[in-house]
Amino acid sequence: MNQNVVAPLVGVVMGSRSDWETMQHATQRLEQLGVPHEVRVVSAHRTPELLVDYAKSAQARGLRAIIAGAGGAAHLPGMIAAMTAVPVLGVPVQSRALSGLDSLLSIVQMPAGVPVATFAIGNAGAANAGLFAAALLAAGHANIAAALADFRAKQTADVLAQPDPRQP
Amino acid sequence: MNQNVVAPLVGVVMGSRSDWETMQHATQRLEQLGVPHEVRVVSAHRTPELLVDYAKSAQARGLRAIIAGAGGAAHLPGMIAAMTAVPVLGVPVQSRALSGLDSLLSIVQMPAGVPVATFAIGNAGAANAGLFAAALLAAGHANIAAALADFRAKQTADVLAQPDPRQP
Amino acid sequence: MNQNVVAPLVGVVMGSRSDWETMQHATQRLEQLGVPHEVRVVSAHRTPELLVDYAKSAQARGLRAIIAGAGGAAHLPGMIAAMTAVPVLGVPVQSRALSGLDSLLSIVQMPAGVPVATFAIGNAGAANAGLFAAALLAAGHANIAAALADFRAKQTADVLAQPDPRQP
Amino acid sequence: MNQNVVAPLVGVVMGSRSDWETMQHATQRLEQLGVPHEVRVVSAHRTPELLVDYAKSAQARGLRAIIAGAGGAAHLPGMIAAMTAVPVLGVPVQSRALSGLDSLLSIVQMPAGVPVATFAIGNAGAANAGLFAAALLAAGHANIAAALADFRAKQTADVLAQPDPRQP
Amino acid sequence: MNQNVVAPLVGVVMGSRSDWETMQHATQRLEQLGVPHEVRVVSAHRTPELLVDYAKSAQARGLRAIIAGAGGAAHLPGMIAAMTAVPVLGVPVQSRALSGLDSLLSIVQMPAGVPVATFAIGNAGAANAGLFAAALLAAGHANIAAALADFRAKQTADVLAQPDPRQP
Amino acid sequence: MNQNVVAPLVGVVMGSRSDWETMQHATQRLEQLGVPHEVRVVSAHRTPELLVDYAKSAQARGLRAIIAGAGGAAHLPGMIAAMTAVPVLGVPVQSRALSGLDSLLSIVQMPAGVPVATFAIGNAGAANAGLFAAALLAAGHANIAAALADFRAKQTADVLAQPDPRQP
Amino acid sequence: MNQNVVAPLVGVVMGSRSDWETMQHATQRLEQLGVPHEVRVVSAHRTPELLVDYAKSAQARGLRAIIAGAGGAAHLPGMIAAMTAVPVLGVPVQSRALSGLDSLLSIVQMPAGVPVATFAIGNAGAANAGLFAAALLAAGHANIAAALADFRAKQTADVLAQPDPRQP
Amino acid sequence: MNQNVVAPLVGVVMGSRSDWETMQHATQRLEQLGVPHEVRVVSAHRTPELLVDYAKSAQARGLRAIIAGAGGAAHLPGMIAAMTAVPVLGVPVQSRALSGLDSLLSIVQMPAGVPVATFAIGNAGAANAGLFAAALLAAGHANIAAALADFRAKQTADVLAQPDPRQP
Repeated sequence: MNQNVVAPLVGVVMGSRSDWETMQHATQRLEQLGVPHEVRVVSAHRTPELLVDYAKSAQARGLRAIIAGAGGAAHLPGMIAAMTAVPVLGVPVQSRALSGLDSLLSIVQMPAGVPVATFAIGNAGAANAGLFAAALLAAGHANIAAALADFRAKQTADVLAQPDPRQP
Repeated sequence: MNQNVVAPLVGVVMGSRSDWETMQHATQRLEQLGVPHEVRVVSAHRTPELLVDYAKSAQARGLRAIIAGAGGAAHLPGMIAAMTAVPVLGVPVQSRALSGLDSLLSIVQMPAGVPVATFAIGNAGAANAGLFAAALLAAGHANIAAALADFRAKQTADVLAQPDPRQP
Repeated sequence: MNQNVVAPLVGVVMGSRSDWETMQHATQRLEQLGVPHEVRVVSAHRTPELLVDYAKSAQARGLRAIIAGAGGAAHLPGMIAAMTAVPVLGVPVQSRALSGLDSLLSIVQMPAGVPVATFAIGNAGAANAGLFAAALLAAGHANIAAALADFRAKQTADVLAQPDPRQP
Repeated sequence: MNQNVVAPLVGVVMGSRSDWETMQHATQRLEQLGVPHEVRVVSAHRTPELLVDYAKSAQARGLRAIIAGAGGAAHLPGMIAAMTAVPVLGVPVQSRALSGLDSLLSIVQMPAGVPVATFAIGNAGAANAGLFAAALLAAGHANIAAALADFRAKQTADVLAQPDPRQP
Repeated sequence: MNQNVVAPLVGVVMGSRSDWETMQHATQRLEQLGVPHEVRVVSAHRTPELLVDYAKSAQARGLRAIIAGAGGAAHLPGMIAAMTAVPVLGVPVQSRALSGLDSLLSIVQMPAGVPVATFAIGNAGAANAGLFAAALLAAGHANIAAALADFRAKQTADVLAQPDPRQP
Repeated sequence: MNQNVVAPLVGVVMGSRSDWETMQHATQRLEQLGVPHEVRVVSAHRTPELLVDYAKSAQARGLRAIIAGAGGAAHLPGMIAAMTAVPVLGVPVQSRALSGLDSLLSIVQMPAGVPVATFAIGNAGAANAGLFAAALLAAGHANIAAALADFRAKQTADVLAQPDPRQP
Repeated sequence: MNQNVVAPLVGVVMGSRSDWETMQHATQRLEQLGVPHEVRVVSAHRTPELLVDYAKSAQARGLRAIIAGAGGAAHLPGMIAAMTAVPVLGVPVQSRALSGLDSLLSIVQMPAGVPVATFAIGNAGAANAGLFAAALLAAGHANIAAALADFRAKQTADVLAQPDPRQP
Repeated sequence: MNQNVVAPLVGVVMGSRSDWETMQHATQRLEQLGVPHEVRVVSAHRTPELLVDYAKSAQARGLRAIIAGAGGAAHLPGMIAAMTAVPVLGVPVQSRALSGLDSLLSIVQMPAGVPVATFAIGNAGAANAGLFAAALLAAGHANIAAALADFRAKQTADVLAQPDPRQP
């Protein structure tokens, strides 16, 4: 893993291996922007002790943000946020029956006192959590700031380059 | 606490003091049916270590069921269930903006592997969690079984005694 | 049916043969944990007399829990609960138009007085109802308690054994 | 009950005394249109045996329609419909947390084979169930047909008589 | 049309040809129960004059019930009900984006004064509208009453004949 | 009615007198912008013939837009649109049980072929329908265009004049 | 582009190339009715400066209506409306997770002061936005008025020509 | 503004003066934690030019985070995010008809490429946006990090100090 060469600044965790299809959109952005990161499965319900360890050690290990994706009764982001001062970014994974509305409400409706920054349901939310993590780091990391500026300039240019949707 | 004379069989926990207005409907049923119980505030997000301690010690302390009420991103029932073999009964407290729909989905939509038995939003759900806890204990506690049978017979009789809704 | 050798402790019922695809996730858990059980179709709407008989005879037949799955206007769990002191576990089957939101609300929103312990919509809910039934029985059945502890230890170990979601 | 002088043609039942505030809008229409009717509380969950008796005896007692109101997990209309050939009209009572959306789905989403004719949530639905019961009877009861025609002519005239909403 | 031999008692209308896939479940029940009926497309929005004609002539043409299916902003059932004393049964057709929730609310939430008896979203609702129409006619048509009783006895027997969902 | 001095360009109709509390926000904007208009109650369900007359005569009477407000199964805007080429602007009135979600879906989800321009639920939607009607007329009425430009300039200035929300 | 021969009267914009599948239903109607129009991708979030330019120049360029389609947090229609006096017609594109309910609410729930005329989710809404734009122009363009009258007459005739949905 | 003594690190903006009742919960946290901030009304729809200026100048003015609150079609957070690299925190203000569900979806469902970190509906979300802004700054501001640690320790201690919800 190329992110092991440098100490990771962002942790990307998810409640289940099946969430990877969604969460890879977060790591793709982090890789594209040169943000060192780590990836692992941490299940709030099946591995609660790992959750505690992960959350409590995050700051000391140098993580500056944690991106946590989960579906259904998605407790992972909120429970990590309860046990660390590191900012937590929550990604609601699209669930089978309720299309991620359950995931979204379980993540975003945190009580006053313990915030989770929440993004859109599914792939777009995962991608945006990656971009937001980069934006948090941009203040102290000029290379990430530059990469992010390039990314945004490029996505603007891409739209402008193809103004007519009728052309393939 | 008068229920300390006998070791409690049921733990009633809630995420915030403001949940008591709802959760007292659970303890009222437990008292009515002679079920020894304890009550305390355990916040998944503000006191996660207490949550871990409470959940992990529950079985050894003799609890046979835990009734957990919470609102919004209601992680308390699911996180307790993740750390104990004691059956967990979840009560979705009615939330301000979304009327408890968020609480309900956060509690009921648990992934396969860690169940939370969920009841209705608000007072009715709290009351029913109390009754359900009594029903679980009824198999081994004849007095609770009898009290429960009386309770149900009485509520049936109450309806039959006043068949005409137009009379005050 | 192998569960007939031993008197069943859990009844698994469903409103329609088409619910079996979902409800088999409950019986799989029961089989895995060595819980004697029975399975049958009981339709609240098409066989109401069978419903009455099933509910009223459940306790005398030795059932300690009834898992009832239904979709849409899912009246089966609640009507069984109305006619027995045996704990009823409700599983909302995913419906075609409303994805099980109708099933969920029809099951969980029981009025105070007659509880139905409700689980997630679909397969996860069925599996969890099976696990919850085992947990209810664990107090008096050491073999079920042990099997349940093994099951949970294994599912924790499974997550820990494959921490990296990027590896197949 | 003044409607006992004539054998009732319509039964109006509700799951709880508290539903009367809503269901009186049904009986007001029946009285206004001269439809003999009876009123009583029948709880699907607290008095299931009464429910069975009521439903099974309805046809023999001469009822031509049954208006059933209930809230939350509103099983009353559907369970009556399961046990009688008499047409059942369901009224979703507005519930506290979910404003009657749960009541509506529990009543209307009946499976193929056992219909419940469902009306709007709350007072309007109760009133319309009363009007619909009268419409069913109109074919064989000229006085009801005439009363219904008068009622509808009057409500049209009332709108036409006050075309300007700005005048008190 | 074989139903033209006998004057139709039930009119089955729908807002679009594409609704036929759903609405044929209504006519199948009517045919099965021997209820003379007619079928046609009447669009509230594209053929409003036909709608007026159809509704206003219904009673004189001998229709005893009108089954109206529509999707989305489903105005057909309510507008027919506004212009006839014949009972109107509404079937919410499952819509593409909102799965029929829009159809359901547009049909069932009629204001006090003009009722539409509403059934479930999609095929089950269409089938049940057919059965309900037969039930309305049963009082005066012994053959329909008998056919309906047979139908219901058969569907009960079908469930009882295959109690084990695990057998194909 | 003071707007009768000049032939009305906009018709404001509503399904019930009780909708006036909402719909007056439309007429206030029209008055403020000098748009001649008329106001009346037209009920799709209670006065369908008036609805037909109103819609069919609209164009010949010189109406250039019709603002139609209704709640619940809100058929008024769509049925007017079905019978006139005059643009119809629909305002979903906030309903009691479902807070106008039913009104919104009943109005906005029109099938392809008959459009209704829909605005927000309640007062804001009524006000905006008034503004939109003025915008439609602005192309041919310089005084309305000027009044609308003034209105918008003023609302921008009002925000800029009080930038600090903490000051009363 | 054939619409460049004549100065466009309607602008059709969309937030992403992927919205074209939906929005082509708007341009098809405009073409069918002979309404000169232009088409381009304008992303509120990725090309905000283009959005400002497009909105601010619209009136001077002679646009009489702007049809704007977007999905999810669909800000495009409302932000255009904030910066032009030209009437804006919003089309909620069906989104992946929430089926366009998010798109609909983001577009229709505009605050008082800045209206967006909103149409149905998806293809029907796009088609209707095209028809509505034509209706706006009909007052001053006799050929569009005639084409629109033909279109509507034809769609009525098409329904009347095939009254029996059972025939292919 | 007393926060002008020190250059503000956080901008708190809202779409309307009426949002202040909610958004003051954000500034209260910022004040409590010693985070220099500024407050002002910026309406996406009524003052779009101010929005552009505010967003584009934010980074140069030294803002490290922008908290944006809005209700209904809440475009403010997303449009600011479209025009600055500064992290944007969105707060869905509880709306009248839809209780903030519209606000939430309009803010959180941003497309891939332009993230808005979203918090809970209403007061809790505003308070958490304030806490999250402080957490972002904590890495480079030891005093904010310490204040935040104190805040969280205190809220944990407050729960632990009053374990029994039955005591006032």
